[in-house]
Amino acid sequence: MSGPASSPAPVGVGLVGLGTIGTGVVKLMQRNFDVMRERLGFPLRMVRVADLDTTRDRGVDLSGIRFDADAAGLVDDPAVDIVVELIGGYDAARRFIHRAIESGKHVVTANKALLALHGKEIFDAAARKGVDVAFEASVGGGIPILRVLREGLAANRILSLHGIINGTTNYILTEMEQSGAAFETVLKRAQDLGYAEVDPTFDVDGIDAAHKLTLLASMAFGAELSFKEVPTEGIRGITPLEFESAAEFGYRIKLLGIAKASPEADGVERIEARVHPTMIPSESLLAKVDGAMNAIAVHGDAVGPTLFYGAGAGEMPTASAVVADLMEIAREIRRGRAGRVAPLSYLPESLRPRPVVPLGEIEARCYLRFTALDRPGVLARITGVLGDHGIGIESVIQKGRGRAGESVPVVMLTDVAREEAVRRSLALIDALPELTAPTCLVRIEEEL
Amino acid sequence: MSGPASSPAPVGVGLVGLGTIGTGVVKLMQRNFDVMRERLGFPLRMVRVADLDTTRDRGVDLSGIRFDADAAGLVDDPAVDIVVELIGGYDAARRFIHRAIESGKHVVTANKALLALHGKEIFDAAARKGVDVAFEASVGGGIPILRVLREGLAANRILSLHGIINGTTNYILTEMEQSGAAFETVLKRAQDLGYAEVDPTFDVDGIDAAHKLTLLASMAFGAELSFKEVPTEGIRGITPLEFESAAEFGYRIKLLGIAKASPEADGVERIEARVHPTMIPSESLLAKVDGAMNAIAVHGDAVGPTLFYGAGAGEMPTASAVVADLMEIAREIRRGRAGRVAPLSYLPESLRPRPVVPLGEIEARCYLRFTALDRPGVLARITGVLGDHGIGIESVIQKGRGRAGESVPVVMLTDVAREEAVRRSLALIDALPELTAPTCLVRIEEEL
Repeated sequence: MSGPASSPAPVGVGLVGLGTIGTGVVKLMQRNFDVMRERLGFPLRMVRVADLDTTRDRGVDLSGIRFDADAAGLVDDPAVDIVVELIGGYDAARRFIHRAIESGKHVVTANKALLALHGKEIFDAAARKGVDVAFEASVGGGIPILRVLREGLAANRILSLHGIINGTTNYILTEMEQSGAAFETVLKRAQDLGYAEVDPTFDVDGIDAAHKLTLLASMAFGAELSFKEVPTEGIRGITPLEFESAAEFGYRIKLLGIAKASPEADGVERIEARVHPTMIPSESLLAKVDGAMNAIAVHGDAVGPTLFYGAGAGEMPTASAVVADLMEIAREIRRGRAGRVAPLSYLPESLRPRPVVPLGEIEARCYLRFTALDRPGVLARITGVLGDHGIGIESVIQKGRGRAGESVPVVMLTDVAREEAVRRSLALIDALPELTAPTCLVRIEEEL
Repeated sequence: MSGPASSPAPVGVGLVGLGTIGTGVVKLMQRNFDVMRERLGFPLRMVRVADLDTTRDRGVDLSGIRFDADAAGLVDDPAVDIVVELIGGYDAARRFIHRAIESGKHVVTANKALLALHGKEIFDAAARKGVDVAFEASVGGGIPILRVLREGLAANRILSLHGIINGTTNYILTEMEQSGAAFETVLKRAQDLGYAEVDPTFDVDGIDAAHKLTLLASMAFGAELSFKEVPTEGIRGITPLEFESAAEFGYRIKLLGIAKASPEADGVERIEARVHPTMIPSESLLAKVDGAMNAIAVHGDAVGPTLFYGAGAGEMPTASAVVADLMEIAREIRRGRAGRVAPLSYLPESLRPRPVVPLGEIEARCYLRFTALDRPGVLARITGVLGDHGIGIESVIQKGRGRAGESVPVVMLTDVAREEAVRRSLALIDALPELTAPTCLVRIEEEL
């Protein structure tokens, strides 16, 4: 449809790693070849694929594509203009990306783990060689959130960002809420359905979300940030009682990645950056994001509140993001350019270390679930300790009565309190003889 | 913060039209000058402003900016690299935009009315002169929806798009629902608060939404489309009863711009493109978008369902979009380039006429509110006519009983029906002697 006259040479893509997403990329580039060409004006073609497993049938047509296990050969192949790295993990991926950059190839990757740890080294190498490294697929799956931060909201000072950025945990929390089942039961079911990995640590302990938040916070605030600095807490401690209580208080529970600009302390610009289960108002848009879907709420000083929603994972949604990056880079190749926009939105020389506010300094309303023997005076002792630390209590719910020697849950909502005061109180409270299990703390975010 | 060494020359911006949004653009470029420079690597500076009214105090600092009524002089000023057109309307805006293009200046505009009618002419002129015309602010205010369609989702075939793209009508519908008040009452209130224009026609009759939908549908489907082809219906016919009934059926009412790929008919690729009040499932994310906020749900073949939410109007949100366009173009100016991405996402030579499916061919479930004298046999006659046209009825609610000679509303939900059959039925039904007012029809969209 792009006119019979010209038939410009294609831009060539090489793919390292033919797993689920890689297979989606091959499929999508074939299926939408025409419509992509009508937008680009030239063809974008997969010319070579490398994977250690060259025999498994992925249900994708590889005819016309050179397919072998030679990833290094792919990177060096002059027919390959852009290298897509989809093997994941650290060492091999890092090696191939650097090899591609050193050969003057542009790189597209979905590897948030690698970028959250070694992003600076990779972006610096790319800048030196004048090639692009694009990574839209690494955060929020098919949601073009990185483009939004880098270009769509580029005129804004970002004030805050709240993201449901891990589909597995959002699926588990949604299922727990709907079924009333315990975490372990729902995790097992999610594993059986393929929604959770056999080793679910990266997802359920919040590590994957912290990787993604590291990239988002870096871009939002121009921060030199390593994921190791991001306080991270997963969802293993959430029980069915938390959902029941949250509903009574008008909240839902989501694992959020949160980043905020913090008021200057002693002339130093700090940021909040943290991942933890969070109670958010049921009526907020973010609270309506269920199942494996993702959404990122971004508040800019000019634009005000915004929200970007879509599938956070999966073969075709993630391929959608990878191929969008390929199209953007291919355009630049045809124009003989690179480096149009800084990978982390701020120019490398404008990125600066932004200390992360320690969790102890966070001020928030808190949900507390105590597990205590049902004895006279327990509630008074608990509230006494909280009061001694200046923590006001907004509501208390005791869930049923325990028989002699049995524990009952006592649920409280606090006023806005400083986390270190809450933690000091909990250390004292949990040491009381009536307390039979560690207290569960869930932070509340209201401004959504 | 961008290093002391280099101090590159700024890119110069000239603004025609210092109204609400123009004032916001000046403010934003001043307020966020530093952060924008840290992202661009060079300064972006407002050098000249033109408005017929040079005396009114807009509460903005214009020192250092040449400000007069000479729009033509501004366009010709060599210090101006990019012209921002924010005067709105057709004739003068069109003239200044063409004059800017002919002088080799890039253009940023928020003028959806002009582009929905004369977009092709303007984009063609810009392509001939090798300059850019950007218009992110024309649809969805601060939501970067045009960038999303053009780049973020560029690898997708767009299947459908449902947008709340007029803040005034969404505010009115939300208020009507919450207060139970009639349209005219709420409109008056909205006018008093400045949320609706003195002449509200463009908003409440769906014309503004149709302008925006024209641009969205053109970009989503590569369609040469004029807004005159878009069937458009406003919200004047919606009464409090519609909200009450919608709630009973599990719906909310939104004025939507809808665009869909339609199955080929006789080898011709058609699209649906229409604006009308719509009942959508209360549990859908789009249904939660209240007040003056906007949101666009886009379904792509690879990415699946997505949604993009934010302020659809207002001084600073709209300025956010205008300045994002300025930054993108400024980057290209510094690189000596233009025309990176086609304005309507598809290259001009790939745009093609896509006939709009006539409303009569639409198939949807329908909400019908009949106003009839409460006489025996009326319901039988109504359902008889519907049955004769093959229209099944899913539920019927008669709202109260009328005394002799009084009319009562009868509300029905139909099964999926073809609109021309519904309209033929309504013509016959409304001609029945018992029917005392024209029947109200609201289409239902389920797949959200």
